[in-house]
Amino acid sequence: MTTINVGLLGLGTVGSGVAKILIEEAELLTLKLGHSLNLAKICARNLQAKRNFTPPPELLTTNPDDIVGNPDIPVVVELMGGLEPARTLVLRALAAGQHVVTANKALLATHGQEIFQKAVEMGREIQFEAAVAGAIPVIRALKEGLTANQIQSVFGILNGTTNHILTRMTQDGMTFHAALTEAQQSGYAEADPTNDVEGYDAAHKLALLTALAYGSLPKITDFHVEGVTRLEPDDFTSAAEFGYVIKLLAVSTMSPLDGRLEIRLHPAMLPSGSLMAGVNGVMNAVLIRGHACGDIFLSGAGAGMMPTASAVMGDIIETSRDLQPGGAPQVPALGWKSLRTWPIKPQDDVKLAYFLRFTVIDKPGVLAAISGVLGKHNISIAQVIQKGFDASRGGVALVILTHEAREKDLLTALAEAEKLDALTAPTRLIRVENRL
Amino acid sequence: MTTINVGLLGLGTVGSGVAKILIEEAELLTLKLGHSLNLAKICARNLQAKRNFTPPPELLTTNPDDIVGNPDIPVVVELMGGLEPARTLVLRALAAGQHVVTANKALLATHGQEIFQKAVEMGREIQFEAAVAGAIPVIRALKEGLTANQIQSVFGILNGTTNHILTRMTQDGMTFHAALTEAQQSGYAEADPTNDVEGYDAAHKLALLTALAYGSLPKITDFHVEGVTRLEPDDFTSAAEFGYVIKLLAVSTMSPLDGRLEIRLHPAMLPSGSLMAGVNGVMNAVLIRGHACGDIFLSGAGAGMMPTASAVMGDIIETSRDLQPGGAPQVPALGWKSLRTWPIKPQDDVKLAYFLRFTVIDKPGVLAAISGVLGKHNISIAQVIQKGFDASRGGVALVILTHEAREKDLLTALAEAEKLDALTAPTRLIRVENRL
Repeated sequence: MTTINVGLLGLGTVGSGVAKILIEEAELLTLKLGHSLNLAKICARNLQAKRNFTPPPELLTTNPDDIVGNPDIPVVVELMGGLEPARTLVLRALAAGQHVVTANKALLATHGQEIFQKAVEMGREIQFEAAVAGAIPVIRALKEGLTANQIQSVFGILNGTTNHILTRMTQDGMTFHAALTEAQQSGYAEADPTNDVEGYDAAHKLALLTALAYGSLPKITDFHVEGVTRLEPDDFTSAAEFGYVIKLLAVSTMSPLDGRLEIRLHPAMLPSGSLMAGVNGVMNAVLIRGHACGDIFLSGAGAGMMPTASAVMGDIIETSRDLQPGGAPQVPALGWKSLRTWPIKPQDDVKLAYFLRFTVIDKPGVLAAISGVLGKHNISIAQVIQKGFDASRGGVALVILTHEAREKDLLTALAEAEKLDALTAPTRLIRVENRL
Repeated sequence: MTTINVGLLGLGTVGSGVAKILIEEAELLTLKLGHSLNLAKICARNLQAKRNFTPPPELLTTNPDDIVGNPDIPVVVELMGGLEPARTLVLRALAAGQHVVTANKALLATHGQEIFQKAVEMGREIQFEAAVAGAIPVIRALKEGLTANQIQSVFGILNGTTNHILTRMTQDGMTFHAALTEAQQSGYAEADPTNDVEGYDAAHKLALLTALAYGSLPKITDFHVEGVTRLEPDDFTSAAEFGYVIKLLAVSTMSPLDGRLEIRLHPAMLPSGSLMAGVNGVMNAVLIRGHACGDIFLSGAGAGMMPTASAVMGDIIETSRDLQPGGAPQVPALGWKSLRTWPIKPQDDVKLAYFLRFTVIDKPGVLAAISGVLGKHNISIAQVIQKGFDASRGGVALVILTHEAREKDLLTALAEAEKLDALTAPTRLIRVENRL
């Protein structure tokens, strides 16, 4: 029986989880795999840090070179996070002929071209199941099980922190600020929550899902990214009245007629009866819509020590199988032997239904004026609800759900409507995703 | 670039879908895989049959020996269904050194030992993603992405026909007979629906999921299998009153303390807020609960031409990757290099909550008598609802939800209660699954 040595770079939450599984589940893994995985070395910044799992001290080092470039360690697992030194170490490991497993979505979304290229050049694996949607085996589903599909759309709830916050806002009427503070206190949000609440974390994951689905890796600056910080409690009650739930939704879709990718990450109203709308708390979910498979919905823990470690282990195991006699890496890192380049549709060209909340003076003719402006720009109204006087905004709310419209037309109409004297507060806009 | 020849045995609904994808998506597959898949031969019983997709006539044969044992065709796809001649042909293909893909759950659940053994002996693949839960890549999830987990439980809705029937009974108050007739008329149920409605189809899939999760392949005669034919409209309204939905649920679970597998397939009341309760119509779903990953929920189409073909294609693709230079089968057929044998807990020892509906004469003391009998056998009552007079059953309904109890105790108590003069109709029992 062969033994495969594994080296860990990073012993934070996820690293501790991976170490724990490699050590505690050694017997189970051998039964399943027919070979052994040996945790050979762990590089940690701080050897004295308090951890959820304490590995044998003789495995620890502070020098990454004990792992990277070490010919006895064919599998390097990068769990440090951040762009550097992660990028340099991953590239050096690949250059030295080591296979790499990483959970670092920011690294791959930012420096993916370079890293995937190096892996191809060296004939080595770069695996990253844990980088998207935690424990959910969605990358493997796209690269393997669903490979024969023309992927039509991928929808996702990809960030647990914001989903937790939005769930509290939905279920308990909290403000964004209160829900964020609570999430920080309970450890679901970081002290600096920017990366999560502004959508960057989810956008990195969306870029990777897009590459897996369509063979074309976008930059997150190439598509619309909008976080959850401006959502207000009223939005959630209005959403419920129209039969919707608000989620931070990742969308990557392609119409074969169009030949352009539509990629966007923003708060969206989803039909409350959809499976995606039922994904609450820190859970993540992905819906893959393929021409043959139809809708495949996957949900589970998007973060956390053991769920993320479970995904990292899946990659370590696949890599170790490739290292068995007769084995070789067969599945390309992004699931495509030949990557492609698809143009990305400008957000202005996107067609969606929209939720709008105008705050207006309560007098006759206002609805006519607003609907006139919308109509002039080809925005047709599906539903209107007029609400009572809102003292904080100095007017009554006119809540409108539009039919599908081109975003550019909608924004133009809104800019024109803003000039009406009847408006007493800025108009709110939330996109509606009815295809779920 | 290499080309891998694929031979199809069977050109029914799924076979037509696989042929369609192999022919129509050839370009996409080459881009993804870096090699080509060539549909070399199709064996069909009837060359004149009307089909959803018509492959080039020169590919067709009625002689399986044009495929099985043909040294030019390394991948044989068995989509005939049934036990024979499927079993003989699959064994012959493996013996001849061919890799096999099949969607035949009955074949594998019945003759799996022999077939998996032959595949190991020959060092060949036997893949069967399409045999369980159609398009959902659940087998790959258990064999690959989630391999590092101690699986604690697998729950599933594994039969689309019965889920469609139960959905109609839930949403529209239909009787079983009416819902079945409608399903037959719309093509969701076969003329002889026994295999679906009595639970055998789902039980075969549950046996395979159990093998993947725990490394031990049970026979369907080794566990409790109960279909949906005896469910009544009243059961669904009572379930809703208690906050439950009735589904035909597959359960395979193991407590490490116990060392016994608990496997069962029966109608169950599930909390109506659970993801599983929201799986309607012909959809299937599987929830995998692992010690590290937590709950991973997967849902999608459980049957149909293209969804099933999508799953078959995933297997063909993985097999074709193994056939590339330097490639070799690395993942054991059931995900375990060493299979194990776990004892199966007798259904009598299962502990669950139960829904009971007694039909009784409406007079004082009846509830006391029934609860006395239950209490004597350690069955404690969680909730009771007394309903109005039911003329068809000649009594009032006393609907009871128990706390968790041992099944043997419950059945003993029910047998004793049956002797009470106050009962005017047989008592109904439905198991309750609160762990979802």
